Amino acid sequence: MKTLDSIDPNLDLVLERTLDVPVEAAWKAWTTPELIYDWFCPKPWKVVECAIDLFPGGRFNFVMQSPEGENYPNVGCVLEVEKEKKLSWTDNLLPGFRPTANHTSTSGLKFTAIILFEADGNKTKYTAIAKHKDEADKTKHEEMGFHQGWGICADQLVALMKDK
Amino acid sequence: MKTLDSIDPNLDLVLERTLDVPVEAAWKAWTTPELIYDWFCPKPWKVVECAIDLFPGGRFNFVMQSPEGENYPNVGCVLEVEKEKKLSWTDNLLPGFRPTANHTSTSGLKFTAIILFEADGNKTKYTAIAKHKDEADKTKHEEMGFHQGWGICADQLVALMKDK
Repeated sequence: MKTLDSIDPNLDLVLERTLDVPVEAAWKAWTTPELIYDWFCPKPWKVVECAIDLFPGGRFNFVMQSPEGENYPNVGCVLEVEKEKKLSWTDNLLPGFRPTANHTSTSGLKFTAIILFEADGNKTKYTAIAKHKDEADKTKHEEMGFHQGWGICADQLVALMKDK
Repeated sequence: MKTLDSIDPNLDLVLERTLDVPVEAAWKAWTTPELIYDWFCPKPWKVVECAIDLFPGGRFNFVMQSPEGENYPNVGCVLEVEKEKKLSWTDNLLPGFRPTANHTSTSGLKFTAIILFEADGNKTKYTAIAKHKDEADKTKHEEMGFHQGWGICADQLVALMKDK
């Protein structure tokens, strides 16, 4: 990571895992909308729509659906795409890098996600970073269950891609 | 430009010019802090500090100084760097892609700047786009003198780089 990507423990949340799937599979799960449906939120929640453009300024949009069938749209902008190494996106910008003042995410807070992938034989070293604007947002995200939620999703990703 | 870069006339401001300097000179003026000092705001205002990291997530920071000597710091984040073709940055993110809720720019509004360069013999086709979150911000920026101000700066850039 470049210096400016460095993590600030007061503002950032980090999940580190070794995923029991090859890096190609982990990357594919993160960048293919049809696969996102099956692992991207802890069941029984699910994703029912998704659009990802794999270039800076592209869409990172998805609609989460609650078990009661209520839809929660999320709109974000892709920032960095380094195949099988790094995927970054933010909901602090709309697609096309347009500023947004409105909350566009289910969580009601804004963050930048930086997902790092590194091959480790047939496994993947996986680091998911959420960067926030202040400690209040970081704490809110943590209390909403960031580590548990993203951990469950990582397990779901592995379960899905193991069979592929 | 990719589709998602497309301009929305309700939300965006655009300045188009042919600059009487080669594309290498125009790019250098936009990406070299010591040169930014001399052309980046209409005189007698000037830039007195500047830091630019030419990679996505890098700094696009500068301090403008009024004729009375008052300093106005601006903090932004580089989004896209395509040498002699495109430079994008936003003040809706801090360096490192961190979300920001606070206004960090002199203008009091947030925007994403997309600067396009195209060689035209010894001249440069130059397009400066400012993308806003809503019509109110776009109108405010226009009324602050976007076209005149950025036009004066373009003239200052040419005057500076003609001699180099």
